[in-house]
Amino acid sequence: MTSPAKPPSGEDSLIARYFKPLASDPGAFNLDDDAAMLKGQGGDIVVTTDAIVEGVHFLPEDPPDTVARKALRVNLSDLAAKGATPAGFVLTLALRVVDEKWLTPFARGLGEDAALFGCPLLGGDTVSTPGPLMISITAFGRVPEGRMVHRRGAKPGDRVVVTGTIGDAALGLDILRGGAAATALAGDVASRRLLVGRFRVPQPRNALAEAVRDHASAAMDVSDGLAGDLAKLCAASGVSAVIDAPGVPLSAGAASMLARGVVGIETLVSGGDDYEILCAIPENHFEAFAAAAGQAGVAVTSIGTVIAGAEAPKFLDAQGREIALPRLSYSHF
Amino acid sequence: MTSPAKPPSGEDSLIARYFKPLASDPGAFNLDDDAAMLKGQGGDIVVTTDAIVEGVHFLPEDPPDTVARKALRVNLSDLAAKGATPAGFVLTLALRVVDEKWLTPFARGLGEDAALFGCPLLGGDTVSTPGPLMISITAFGRVPEGRMVHRRGAKPGDRVVVTGTIGDAALGLDILRGGAAATALAGDVASRRLLVGRFRVPQPRNALAEAVRDHASAAMDVSDGLAGDLAKLCAASGVSAVIDAPGVPLSAGAASMLARGVVGIETLVSGGDDYEILCAIPENHFEAFAAAAGQAGVAVTSIGTVIAGAEAPKFLDAQGREIALPRLSYSHF
Repeated sequence: MTSPAKPPSGEDSLIARYFKPLASDPGAFNLDDDAAMLKGQGGDIVVTTDAIVEGVHFLPEDPPDTVARKALRVNLSDLAAKGATPAGFVLTLALRVVDEKWLTPFARGLGEDAALFGCPLLGGDTVSTPGPLMISITAFGRVPEGRMVHRRGAKPGDRVVVTGTIGDAALGLDILRGGAAATALAGDVASRRLLVGRFRVPQPRNALAEAVRDHASAAMDVSDGLAGDLAKLCAASGVSAVIDAPGVPLSAGAASMLARGVVGIETLVSGGDDYEILCAIPENHFEAFAAAAGQAGVAVTSIGTVIAGAEAPKFLDAQGREIALPRLSYSHF
Repeated sequence: MTSPAKPPSGEDSLIARYFKPLASDPGAFNLDDDAAMLKGQGGDIVVTTDAIVEGVHFLPEDPPDTVARKALRVNLSDLAAKGATPAGFVLTLALRVVDEKWLTPFARGLGEDAALFGCPLLGGDTVSTPGPLMISITAFGRVPEGRMVHRRGAKPGDRVVVTGTIGDAALGLDILRGGAAATALAGDVASRRLLVGRFRVPQPRNALAEAVRDHASAAMDVSDGLAGDLAKLCAASGVSAVIDAPGVPLSAGAASMLARGVVGIETLVSGGDDYEILCAIPENHFEAFAAAAGQAGVAVTSIGTVIAGAEAPKFLDAQGREIALPRLSYSHF
């Protein structure tokens, strides 16, 4: 009586077919139970949840395996920034139809990333929706008791450090939408591919989690734009910061477009979807942190300094003048 | 560049305004961090995730506070069936627009239920969607190490027991849709209200969690229909069951409609959204289980017996004849 006319047990067979092969962790109970289990193991469990929506966080034509990877990786990025080691995740998948051509590569991409990052599927829920595809993931990580790294904790004098490069994903999305970046890079397939790849498949810095835990006074991942996320970290820590904008690490493609005036630095530092780690490192920890990052194979760049104060962080140009930032970051509403 | 034209920081102010007041648990960090934290505490953490979608699990005109309660309670029901004590939840909310008239009662209902069931909001994500509202919750519960109750474990000879009454929510939905139940109960406001209430606001049996943990050999919550869910429990346990259909507990409204031929028993035992506990209780535990249920104020009814075998459970009528069940339960696909 509650059911639209659908064949019985379709949901169960969908789960069995596509997702059971991923549920190798003993706490997943082979997806045959109502719940999953995480062992407490004496430490703390870090919990993060992030959803991605078709047409908002990914595009309908994005390859399904990259959609799966992005859904998991945006959560892995939070775990990395909190200094946590991945322990597993649960998945909610809202689908319009069961489309084998979409689900097969989606499940494959999800399984490959789960294995790559040591973050097994523990359970999930599959629901039908008349609306856009939505993938909501809640991921779990482990830290020793009391060692989760917070947004609060940055102190005046700490260095402001970011991993990787900033602004690429925003340019990648602009390329996919046929914007100015697409025109500027019309003859440069390699750069276009790199930037689009940065939008579709973030590179979460989980290899750096232990170094963040050992050395950062505060950390978060850059998901909504560097400027806005730094403002959040500073607000939570009760500090401000001064950033040397020319020191913000850029990919070759982004640097070239900046040099040619296709984009301004204010666009790059307020674009979303970077999924890099932003952290504050006390000066006397910086050398050890940089060494650990080198060992982990993650590029880190010191871009500024935490200062006392309550005002929003300032981004300064090569002449030391403050750069106006019309908007700090991406917001859904 | 990645952003649709929306005012900056709307998402943050939305979270601050509506959800921070609910985030009183220390592990929520006042919703000011990227992640929440659960203390391991030496036991096991039971994880369950269930999403509800507008137009599928709730109706657009359902009161927002009941939508919030249902979203949380369908997860609490899983925790209860696993013998777990609620520890907290994370929320993903996909919204078309920020509608204060909807969000205010939604957050109020969510906060009231979080307090009522001792299951605090730990974190969440708010995303925009062009599609239907969707609320995805991942809830956590605690059990002593190794004590989560599974679907597997039922043994021949165990009693099959359900809490509360079965089939009410399916009738409630039928009333809301103006179906046969609405016509049959046109003059009976009290029954209509009760049945609609059972669809909109499940009554999860968390008060029974400890008794389930102490006495059940297997358990799950009835969310997709008694017949189908019992078939799943039996399959996971490698057993079958025989159910005395006239012994299935019904509310007065459901019993009256059954007696008048408005619905058949096969509809009641395959309707979804009951959110009662279905469990197998070894005979030598039944008395103690029933006593504990009485103490907890939860009605429990023995409806049949677990038997050896691999076939689907049989529902027998008063004459011992098998009742044909055209479909066992609700399925999304």
